[in-house]
Amino acid sequence: MKIYGDKISGNCLKVKWTADHLGLTYDWIDIDILAGESRTPEFLAMNPFGQVPTVELDDGRYLAQSNAVVLHLAEGSTLIPGDAYERARMLEFMFWEQYSHEPYVAVCRFQHHYLKMPLAELDKEKVERGYRALDTMEGWLSDNAFLTGSSTSCADISLVAYTRWAHEGGFELGPYENVCGWIERVEAALGIAD
Amino acid sequence: MKIYGDKISGNCLKVKWTADHLGLTYDWIDIDILAGESRTPEFLAMNPFGQVPTVELDDGRYLAQSNAVVLHLAEGSTLIPGDAYERARMLEFMFWEQYSHEPYVAVCRFQHHYLKMPLAELDKEKVERGYRALDTMEGWLSDNAFLTGSSTSCADISLVAYTRWAHEGGFELGPYENVCGWIERVEAALGIAD
Repeated sequence: MKIYGDKISGNCLKVKWTADHLGLTYDWIDIDILAGESRTPEFLAMNPFGQVPTVELDDGRYLAQSNAVVLHLAEGSTLIPGDAYERARMLEFMFWEQYSHEPYVAVCRFQHHYLKMPLAELDKEKVERGYRALDTMEGWLSDNAFLTGSSTSCADISLVAYTRWAHEGGFELGPYENVCGWIERVEAALGIAD
Repeated sequence: MKIYGDKISGNCLKVKWTADHLGLTYDWIDIDILAGESRTPEFLAMNPFGQVPTVELDDGRYLAQSNAVVLHLAEGSTLIPGDAYERARMLEFMFWEQYSHEPYVAVCRFQHHYLKMPLAELDKEKVERGYRALDTMEGWLSDNAFLTGSSTSCADISLVAYTRWAHEGGFELGPYENVCGWIERVEAALGIAD
């Protein structure tokens, strides 16, 4: 398998962490988003959206959308709960991540940390919705060590990616004690060192 | 099972169509979004996001996020492809729907058709991205009767919901011949009459 990704992208790291955790072998091909390497004709031939991560499976077929790739790689592993309801909750968190978390927390981070937009110029609605996502997670994690089930699932991989970097988008994580504790647990479970 | 939903919401209809197609029994509880019925204290106690659809399973537990509910109900049915790659592609389409289609096609429809915002006042970027999503689908469907596999899957249910109503958001569907043919096939397969 080849993973085309950029390590400044949490979406790409989700796939890397999953593969590492499961002991899958892969070649990592660095795609520098900021240098436009996901917009070259060669890259667009693999993925017309010019999005990373894009994965080339061993049979030459491609797959994109980070959460779909994570779920595909994790099939049959403990990263997917055996219980049907917990499995459904895992999917609920992952769709919520793409609709109600990533467009705010990750986008603010990208604009501030990489495009160097001053915090005061970030779209106020995006910031507010980012905090609303963090508030929601703080509530979920008040009684639970992980998002669903009793150990790390694909939902934790999906949501930890940009939550652990929220401060780079100007979000103050300090007051979110449950979230901070959960980040540490998930990082430890996945062996995330940096 | 109880489905709390509003029939003006494609996200709610995804769940209804899936349950009907699979012959599941359920009570449909109408929640009038425009009248604020998804924001009452009673509703927020079930789903703190105030979002429909929200499903109450027979054991009293709740589930939200339309695509997660559809996948949960469809487990073990022909709506989920048996082949691992096709299953992954189905998920890819469903995450893409929530990130790159619904926020544009569905939001423009809601603003124009229900909030009565004139077409000229719709956010130009949303309109452009909506058309980009339709362009993408037109390409996918040029060689394929359904999005993945040889029959209707959860991906078709997910994407047909707002695509078939795109005209209510001011999108001209006429030139999208592949998309229009696919809408007819999926409607026929699911028995969607209205």
